[in-house]
Amino acid sequence: MKQAELNKYFLEAIERGIEEKNEGFIKDSLEGLHPIDINKILYELDTAESKYVIDLLDVEVSAEILEELEVDVRSKFLTHFTPKELAHYINHIDSDNATDILNEQARQVREKVLPLLDEEKAGYILDLLKYDEDTAGGLMEKEFIIAQFNWTTLQCIEEIRRQKEKVEKVFSVYVVDEQQHLVGRISLKRLILAPDDSIISDLMEDVIHVDAFMEEEEVAKLMSKYDLVAVPVVNMKKKLIGRITIDDIVDVITEQAELDQQAMSGISEDVDDSDTVWTLTRARLPWLIVGMLGGILGAQLIGLFEGAIRVVPAMAFFIPLITATGGNVGIQSSTIIIQSLANDSIMPNDLLSRTMKSLFVAILNGLVIGGMVFCFNFFFVEISLAFAVAIALFSVVILASLTGTLTPIILDKLNVNPALASGPFITTANDLLGIGVYFLVAYLLIL
Amino acid sequence: MKQAELNKYFLEAIERGIEEKNEGFIKDSLEGLHPIDINKILYELDTAESKYVIDLLDVEVSAEILEELEVDVRSKFLTHFTPKELAHYINHIDSDNATDILNEQARQVREKVLPLLDEEKAGYILDLLKYDEDTAGGLMEKEFIIAQFNWTTLQCIEEIRRQKEKVEKVFSVYVVDEQQHLVGRISLKRLILAPDDSIISDLMEDVIHVDAFMEEEEVAKLMSKYDLVAVPVVNMKKKLIGRITIDDIVDVITEQAELDQQAMSGISEDVDDSDTVWTLTRARLPWLIVGMLGGILGAQLIGLFEGAIRVVPAMAFFIPLITATGGNVGIQSSTIIIQSLANDSIMPNDLLSRTMKSLFVAILNGLVIGGMVFCFNFFFVEISLAFAVAIALFSVVILASLTGTLTPIILDKLNVNPALASGPFITTANDLLGIGVYFLVAYLLIL
Repeated sequence: MKQAELNKYFLEAIERGIEEKNEGFIKDSLEGLHPIDINKILYELDTAESKYVIDLLDVEVSAEILEELEVDVRSKFLTHFTPKELAHYINHIDSDNATDILNEQARQVREKVLPLLDEEKAGYILDLLKYDEDTAGGLMEKEFIIAQFNWTTLQCIEEIRRQKEKVEKVFSVYVVDEQQHLVGRISLKRLILAPDDSIISDLMEDVIHVDAFMEEEEVAKLMSKYDLVAVPVVNMKKKLIGRITIDDIVDVITEQAELDQQAMSGISEDVDDSDTVWTLTRARLPWLIVGMLGGILGAQLIGLFEGAIRVVPAMAFFIPLITATGGNVGIQSSTIIIQSLANDSIMPNDLLSRTMKSLFVAILNGLVIGGMVFCFNFFFVEISLAFAVAIALFSVVILASLTGTLTPIILDKLNVNPALASGPFITTANDLLGIGVYFLVAYLLIL
Repeated sequence: MKQAELNKYFLEAIERGIEEKNEGFIKDSLEGLHPIDINKILYELDTAESKYVIDLLDVEVSAEILEELEVDVRSKFLTHFTPKELAHYINHIDSDNATDILNEQARQVREKVLPLLDEEKAGYILDLLKYDEDTAGGLMEKEFIIAQFNWTTLQCIEEIRRQKEKVEKVFSVYVVDEQQHLVGRISLKRLILAPDDSIISDLMEDVIHVDAFMEEEEVAKLMSKYDLVAVPVVNMKKKLIGRITIDDIVDVITEQAELDQQAMSGISEDVDDSDTVWTLTRARLPWLIVGMLGGILGAQLIGLFEGAIRVVPAMAFFIPLITATGGNVGIQSSTIIIQSLANDSIMPNDLLSRTMKSLFVAILNGLVIGGMVFCFNFFFVEISLAFAVAIALFSVVILASLTGTLTPIILDKLNVNPALASGPFITTANDLLGIGVYFLVAYLLIL
């Protein structure tokens, strides 16, 4: 596995090789490259060229290439394969990814491919298809090493030998009793150092496991908390049914961070900038419309003070200052709470103390911001308006801080992703709150 | 390792046990619990109680407890330990975490502890202290298994036995030549299945490695791309000097996501809500002040149109609609670009096509939002104002989309975290842009 930099001349040579159907040259050139690096080359080729290369390579390498392709690309690319070809590659792919790949294909294709697979692989896939893809069951693979608790070390090593093609990465051997209940694990390190005739149950350690219906975020938290590289999955009867490896969890964590970022930005579908203009527009419109409705409501609210503005137009000057400050404070407050929620560091009885702390921070921030603006306005507008702006700013900082702190906590209680709070929702709410407070204060002080 | 739920009665019993100095009871109660779960209990105890428990437990368990404590808590907690006690525990902690723990202590403490450590551990730590903590060298540990390329399998297994206490997790054995250059790796699976007299160089595979000065984000990308659970680290001369395991990388990924979220929210220091009121205020004020200055500039800008507002106060009603829409569109656009940048999916020559796409999405969104607001305003305000608002909204959506797309790309080129763009910076800029466009259009159309 060389670490390859994709190079223009190399790519041109490969393209020429494909054109000339120079199989030997292509095989030699790609020999020893990591499938992920071959993938990068395929992304630069067209569909027919890519398929030509894949059919040429060793089936193990091709299978891993298909495993690692991006989902959107893969689902389209594989429509160019016959069911027989698909089955050929899927037989060499771990059951978790094999299930995902089949799931991406049309139902008719799935039904044609399944009977063509090896019996064991087909059984695994049919089993995995039962689980929601966001749960432990949806993440797990069926390929892993099982030992009976009464086996010897030698028997266990023989089992590893028997499965060595099928189970690529072995971290631990999971130990079960006669009813297939998970009872422990043995690390390969311990196995390698144990005498051949030791009994497995004397060597095994306790093992942390997850339930098949556990949500993937929970699995991620557990594995990162206990620094696990793999975790066994059990069903309701505590029977061992699968294994989740850390590489899938790294993907879950990365994806979750992206989704939270999108939620915070008011993007309502999982998109990336390679999606179509239409998908991107659809993902962005809903929260833009919410913001727009907020803006129209704001217009109505300000409209109530039309007479006052006519007399003191300067009242209108500070609208953006008030709304921007409310928005900024609200987003800051909610982000800090959302991160605490994600780290599980909020205990129920903490609620009051956290709100109080948030209040103190708000008072400090409010005094600084309000004070600075007052000093500035002192020289530019009437003193009564300067007072009104400062008091309104101070109040807005306090209110935005409270809504920013409480909204994510409430959403979390309602099982809604609290990251939604730290976006257009909180800014829209705070805009309205800010406008209301500002004009009320200004009206009372000035007129 | 039982999976424990912290329970009030259990905690009370432990506290009573500590009060009565009932050592046997405490040891029995905590026996078999995972250090991370014991940690949860310690968080509920005071400093003296926690130290009492830690000194009571098996040193391996206590060392892992200290390893897993939160940094803020640990740095304070360990000031209650004598240098000799510190050295005792640090001797049982992997070199990467041992270095971090020493780094958290005052310089005088560090200088007293180092000579008290085992010679090997002290050497490891002195070596690791040389590396910046955000690089591969700062993440790596010195505990891992090395085999010479001309060894037999049996010699390699003997080496694992010799190091079995010191190297807790073994995934692969790294193979070096006589000059300690990294030449390959052998998985434990392959080692376990090989005959005792096989030669290591016949068994080994190519290995992906990183350079000691690689940034931690790059290491994280590489490990997640190639699905690695550990990666060896080499120095400039390609000599093997350390190993990075995936658990540290999971922490890097999580931390990076939190920092990006904070940058997007205008929080300028890495804080969490357990920090002091003062720290939290200090982290939040800078961007609030930037927002405030933007607001004051906005006030000056609107002030230029004072006469117009006096005649048509309704012009002021739509200020929040304009600024909110600009802010929302800007944040959406920048988040989509930031995620592409993070995934390395933007090629330089893509810039134009992405900007064009972003423009199309903006035109669609702008037409919908502008159109809806126009229909609404048609019934409520003068037709010329309704036109002005719709045209300004449309323009603001386009402009905000462009600034949101281009700012992160420019920041990225300047080696500034582009996530900074998707926060108060972009909202403040778009507020000003929006106000300018709106009043200009309104002024031209209405007066």
